[in-house]
Amino acid sequence: MKIINSISHMRKQVLLWRQERLSIAMVPTMGFFHDGHLSLMRTAGNKADRVVVSLFVNPAQFGPNEDLNRYPRDLERDAKLAEDTGVSCLFYPDVKDIYPPGFQTWIRVDGLSQGLCGTSRPEHFRGVATIVAKLFIIVRPDMAIFGQKDFQQLQVIRRMVMDLNIPVNIIAHPIVREPDGLALSSRNTYLNMKERESALSLFQALQIAEKMVASGNISVPEIIRAVKKHIQSFSNTKIDYVFLGHPESLRPCREIVGEALLALAVWVGKTRLIDNTLLKQQANQAHQIDKSKGSEI
Amino acid sequence: MKIINSISHMRKQVLLWRQERLSIAMVPTMGFFHDGHLSLMRTAGNKADRVVVSLFVNPAQFGPNEDLNRYPRDLERDAKLAEDTGVSCLFYPDVKDIYPPGFQTWIRVDGLSQGLCGTSRPEHFRGVATIVAKLFIIVRPDMAIFGQKDFQQLQVIRRMVMDLNIPVNIIAHPIVREPDGLALSSRNTYLNMKERESALSLFQALQIAEKMVASGNISVPEIIRAVKKHIQSFSNTKIDYVFLGHPESLRPCREIVGEALLALAVWVGKTRLIDNTLLKQQANQAHQIDKSKGSEI
Repeated sequence: MKIINSISHMRKQVLLWRQERLSIAMVPTMGFFHDGHLSLMRTAGNKADRVVVSLFVNPAQFGPNEDLNRYPRDLERDAKLAEDTGVSCLFYPDVKDIYPPGFQTWIRVDGLSQGLCGTSRPEHFRGVATIVAKLFIIVRPDMAIFGQKDFQQLQVIRRMVMDLNIPVNIIAHPIVREPDGLALSSRNTYLNMKERESALSLFQALQIAEKMVASGNISVPEIIRAVKKHIQSFSNTKIDYVFLGHPESLRPCREIVGEALLALAVWVGKTRLIDNTLLKQQANQAHQIDKSKGSEI
Repeated sequence: MKIINSISHMRKQVLLWRQERLSIAMVPTMGFFHDGHLSLMRTAGNKADRVVVSLFVNPAQFGPNEDLNRYPRDLERDAKLAEDTGVSCLFYPDVKDIYPPGFQTWIRVDGLSQGLCGTSRPEHFRGVATIVAKLFIIVRPDMAIFGQKDFQQLQVIRRMVMDLNIPVNIIAHPIVREPDGLALSSRNTYLNMKERESALSLFQALQIAEKMVASGNISVPEIIRAVKKHIQSFSNTKIDYVFLGHPESLRPCREIVGEALLALAVWVGKTRLIDNTLLKQQANQAHQIDKSKGSEI
């Protein structure tokens, strides 16, 4: 595996691969790899000839009071994990090269960046969109793999590449979980034992919602109430948001029709965790609704 | 000359040229070509194997009360002029393809977009930066030629390609003028005979400033006063701004040291015209200043 620090070396490597007509899949990360990251890398390896993993703890997507400085870092460990997973190249540029003196150009995806995580993290998605565009322009991958845990990020990036004509295929990877259901996250390392128990409330709340929908309840207020109640029954939890709405527009809905996104952000102690699931209205429910409206399928 | 309307066809053409290892120079335009445009195209032809001229009247860079609808258009005439100038490809995408439904991604170059034209045209440079980035991503030129008449635009684009790592060499082309000095502009077609006379006040004011500097006057307030006085002596003129400052940072200065940008925006009737020049402090003046400060070179 090549470890590349300089932007110009990265470009040269990409050019060589392009000349050999090799396809490139990219996995942008902030490092401190867990099985979720490794799973994205394996998917990338199955889909393309070469896999580039970028490792960049992006200051622009952290708010002033967020955890930029204590965000976990371990380049040596990450390099070994990436190499063992079959990655072709680990690209870890310096902050001073990515944001040189006088840097002042920002990419904003207006509507999709608002609401959900955008409410409590107002410049977060500006930082995400800008760094991902820069990485795509430098590496020119054919495809890039993103975890579905950051669902809003995934939709922001999908919209950005469409709007800016960046020729990269965005592939979503399902959330990878611990055996008990906790979604993998580098931030899980912040949790103590008691907090680790409370952190499970997110996954459990998603399951409660799934069961409600499966049993025919499609009322958004009722589902949100049950989700909140469950999370609040755990110690040291503070809900940032519970969102239920359209997976593409990220606008809230009043009833679940077809497919809806249930997304959570919850503080557990000083750690902010997110999780989500797609709630699917059952086929027989759709039938019932149409019947109640008097319009048989 | 190829005339290409579709983004995907444009990409295919570029790919063919790339496979033949041909270099590409791009000239982004809003059409209604005058000698200024043709001069950019000739420069492009001297520097690269293939020249792509884009023709797109970009709604996103017009304000709500600006001249988008009456902006002059003549595709047939433009195509003939481009072909006669040796252009390889005229790319004229549709608005609906450049800004598809749900479009919401914007590129902002923060500091450089403020002041000068940014004051009276608040979203103008956001529109410029976004369309130019999109065109660069689609056409992937090795270089792009921009007229120095839109000096602030030139600096915004230079900063943007640097900040977003877009690998394109930005080349500035000197302002092309009528024999009497009026800077060429598609908007000159709006001027009636009386306004055409008043329009000359911009170039004349620049010349007055150049003479002042040549004769040793480096006081910014005095130069601005003389420039304003000259323009206001013409009928039907209304000054939008007179800027004198650093050519790179676009911050105002108090004295001319080294090189300074003098940039003007003036309404002549209902037509807004811009012009600029670089004022260069004479070598012997720099010497005098250093002497007055007691620091001999």
